[in-house]
Amino acid sequence: MKITIAQLDYHIGNFEGNTAKMVEAIRMAKEAGSDIVCFSELATCGYPPRDFLEFDDFIRLSDESLALLCTYAKDIAVVVGAPSHNRNPKGKSLFNSVYFLADGEIKFVQHKTLLPTYDIFDEYRYFEPAKSWEVVEYKGKKIALTVCEDIWDVGTDDPLYTIIPMDEMMKFSPDFIINVSASPFNYGHAKNRIHTVRANVQRYGIPMFYINHCGAQTELLFDGGSLVVSQNGMVHEELPYFVECIRHFSLEGVLKGDQSHEQPKNKIALIHDGIVMGIKDYFRKLGFSKAILGLSGGIDSAVTAVLAARALGPENVRVLLMPSQFSTHHSVDDAMDLVNKLGIKHDIIPIKDIYDAFMDKLSPLFEGMPFNVTEENIQARVRGTLNMALSNKFGNILLNTTNKSEMAVGYGTLYGDLCGGLSVIGDVYKTEVYELAAYINKDEEVIPKNSIIKPPSAELRPGQKDSDSLPEYDILDPILFQYIEKRQGPQDIIDMGYDPALVRRVLRLVNINEFKRHQTAPVLRVSPKAFGVGRRVPIVGKYLN
Amino acid sequence: MKITIAQLDYHIGNFEGNTAKMVEAIRMAKEAGSDIVCFSELATCGYPPRDFLEFDDFIRLSDESLALLCTYAKDIAVVVGAPSHNRNPKGKSLFNSVYFLADGEIKFVQHKTLLPTYDIFDEYRYFEPAKSWEVVEYKGKKIALTVCEDIWDVGTDDPLYTIIPMDEMMKFSPDFIINVSASPFNYGHAKNRIHTVRANVQRYGIPMFYINHCGAQTELLFDGGSLVVSQNGMVHEELPYFVECIRHFSLEGVLKGDQSHEQPKNKIALIHDGIVMGIKDYFRKLGFSKAILGLSGGIDSAVTAVLAARALGPENVRVLLMPSQFSTHHSVDDAMDLVNKLGIKHDIIPIKDIYDAFMDKLSPLFEGMPFNVTEENIQARVRGTLNMALSNKFGNILLNTTNKSEMAVGYGTLYGDLCGGLSVIGDVYKTEVYELAAYINKDEEVIPKNSIIKPPSAELRPGQKDSDSLPEYDILDPILFQYIEKRQGPQDIIDMGYDPALVRRVLRLVNINEFKRHQTAPVLRVSPKAFGVGRRVPIVGKYLN
Repeated sequence: MKITIAQLDYHIGNFEGNTAKMVEAIRMAKEAGSDIVCFSELATCGYPPRDFLEFDDFIRLSDESLALLCTYAKDIAVVVGAPSHNRNPKGKSLFNSVYFLADGEIKFVQHKTLLPTYDIFDEYRYFEPAKSWEVVEYKGKKIALTVCEDIWDVGTDDPLYTIIPMDEMMKFSPDFIINVSASPFNYGHAKNRIHTVRANVQRYGIPMFYINHCGAQTELLFDGGSLVVSQNGMVHEELPYFVECIRHFSLEGVLKGDQSHEQPKNKIALIHDGIVMGIKDYFRKLGFSKAILGLSGGIDSAVTAVLAARALGPENVRVLLMPSQFSTHHSVDDAMDLVNKLGIKHDIIPIKDIYDAFMDKLSPLFEGMPFNVTEENIQARVRGTLNMALSNKFGNILLNTTNKSEMAVGYGTLYGDLCGGLSVIGDVYKTEVYELAAYINKDEEVIPKNSIIKPPSAELRPGQKDSDSLPEYDILDPILFQYIEKRQGPQDIIDMGYDPALVRRVLRLVNINEFKRHQTAPVLRVSPKAFGVGRRVPIVGKYLN
Repeated sequence: MKITIAQLDYHIGNFEGNTAKMVEAIRMAKEAGSDIVCFSELATCGYPPRDFLEFDDFIRLSDESLALLCTYAKDIAVVVGAPSHNRNPKGKSLFNSVYFLADGEIKFVQHKTLLPTYDIFDEYRYFEPAKSWEVVEYKGKKIALTVCEDIWDVGTDDPLYTIIPMDEMMKFSPDFIINVSASPFNYGHAKNRIHTVRANVQRYGIPMFYINHCGAQTELLFDGGSLVVSQNGMVHEELPYFVECIRHFSLEGVLKGDQSHEQPKNKIALIHDGIVMGIKDYFRKLGFSKAILGLSGGIDSAVTAVLAARALGPENVRVLLMPSQFSTHHSVDDAMDLVNKLGIKHDIIPIKDIYDAFMDKLSPLFEGMPFNVTEENIQARVRGTLNMALSNKFGNILLNTTNKSEMAVGYGTLYGDLCGGLSVIGDVYKTEVYELAAYINKDEEVIPKNSIIKPPSAELRPGQKDSDSLPEYDILDPILFQYIEKRQGPQDIIDMGYDPALVRRVLRLVNINEFKRHQTAPVLRVSPKAFGVGRRVPIVGKYLN
């Protein structure tokens, strides 16, 4: 038996485009002589469709896609994820299902049992869990069809659910497992994914074909990394990350269990490639091609510019240099150094005159009050307005250059440097931005050395440095990591050896700045806990502040 | 038996404050000779605590609050909602529970069964559903304890769940039901609430004491409206909306079933009172007292200013008038008219010079390109920056004045008029803003008649009117309502008699402007479907656009 895995980049709601991709993959699978071609979870509509699922019209379009796919499911079986209707008046009105299409019709449907509802997942918002389990028989083989999370309560010390659907399906003695997934990337996920698939094949003694999405959906990155794992736990094949890929496998070859091929898993390389794909897909799916960003001469905007140039091509990246009276002379030089290296379009607009025009009007109101964060913010907002003016005039999307450390403690100006349609490195701590810069510079100096080594500064008042108001990033970042990624409380973090007053100050800063993060751009998610849809915190909360 | 209902305004994470309030209410209940005092769902920690629930430290603080409340639960029983621990290694680690405290200890705990996970609710994200049900016996009475949603699958044609916990508890023949709730306000909710409670008492033939939160938690408004409903379906008492309130009831009196008292339910009055409470609580819970907003002379900012003055006192509201070269002469006059009527502080800053300073720098880059939305946006962003400058300098929170119709179709400038810490009328359609203005003016003209009758305009280019680019609001709003509140698809709406091209254009506008709503302030929720946490739509989606 020959099985094709189609690891594709779907587009939410683009039924026509998604179906066309699958039809082409079916054609290729047939050409390769495959018996079954497998797509991913909710492949008709894209993942995550979110509240579009509440529209009957949207579900109707998915049903139409399925009907069309059926017409191609001749001389080949098609495994594809899509919503299905719960005909029972009780419970949610939809299931998240995997369909088995053959002989031109829907031959079998298995619903998803375990509905992830944590971090970025909201599946119980829409779906009723399966309460019955069967396998499908095709060409003499019995196949257990599972959907993503269904296999994730195996191989863990902390089971989230009370049922394991594969345990139920084993009653029918399936020959192998197909898992259709939509499992978003983070820098540690590929390792976990292999661990989980392996734990399943070892528990059940049968091989698994695991088909993931690739591509980005706004902030969510899907890395692909689809898997074929033999019953002995050998990774027969791990498909490449971040690219579409169609591969054909012989079941007999997989059952031999004598092949092992995994992709390299370097954290910073994964973050780099994930972000590049994230930018590319955000623009493509919105129908844009060109980006703009403010280039300060510092490391954050430099890294963002390089990632943008790699995603969109240097000819599609435009930067604005906006020195203020507080900018050091090397800021423009360092920025120009990068502009020349990347070969991107630039403009220089000093902001002093515009800032002065604001202060001219505001000074009478501010009489007798000292220069403070107000004036700093005005400068940042002049820059934001200039960036947005070019964005509006030339149809470029403004990229936000804020890093995760700044996002966390609110070190940034709303409607100023926090402007932008997409936050590129908002899930990358400052210390990781340095690693990313080193990775980018591994073969040649792309990011000017000076941008990397100079002390971080917002340059909004004379001689300002980040370290004036924040601890050094190599102390700040681990505290943030423990609080944000690890959900440790203040005492837990203090017990790790950090200064109690500093810990309390940092955690307070994170919590009181929730209002800023509420209004910032979607953040490309590369860590297990990114700001955005996967982290939900009340603005008026009075916890730790 | 005497039962006290304490309808209180909790503050998320403010364990000390919440506990102190409850201790005081226990004292009052004892003084009134009550046998039982009832608080609301998750009263220790406030509702919704969201991802704070993922912190062991946060749960520990809730446990400490419970321990403290136990020390006061002597000579009186205390019914209170709080998270509890799931000791089973399988499933989520918490339950959403109602505790029965008596004789200084936790006497009984019942977990919530039905975990709302739709609209603004995310409860399955955190909690394991109950799988066993009992009642508690106290002073010879058997009491069924339920938590909010537990009673909501009765009296509906569209049950969301497959179990009805009260059906299970009826096996123990309880004498009455207590329901601890955190049921957020919308203008139709009080009616639904009475319907549901009535359906329950009639199904089970026993009375119910229903205790809701009041107060606002960022965007969510809780109206209170706690209920005592006799077994015959008579509303023995409906507590007032939007205020804290402690009331004592004799069970025997309730059982007579001969009293009926409900609150008036005028949609616009409810929206008005809800928003006033929402502003008040947002400021109080964040520790602020003063607001600023831009006053344009139009109806939206006028209504917002009045609501702010009513919430915070006119002495705490400051407005900025920022005429441009395109402003009509009456704009400043109309705004000043309101300033004088309300007695609020104002400043006038014409924006032309600052706008010119921007254009002076940008003109060389824009050479040969016509005036378009770019220049309109610059004006809006100059205003946003001026508003924020005053906000920063004087510690005022900027109120956003955008209405729901504009939010829906993206008729507003990001980082411009969409600035602000809180969106006051972002869940009020333009046609409802007119009703709100009429309601405000019912006794005397507060909002200048001219602000109400003139054609809506952003005044960002000569002679501009909203109707140049949008349909009239009395056509636009019903289409938006069908799409947003009712989740109707394009064909459904066209079938109602609307122009097909217009319907497609409006729905497309809603969807392509998701990126703007992603970055706007939290919106005080007054409708069943507000923009914000209760409506989750992918930015890169390609549905209807």
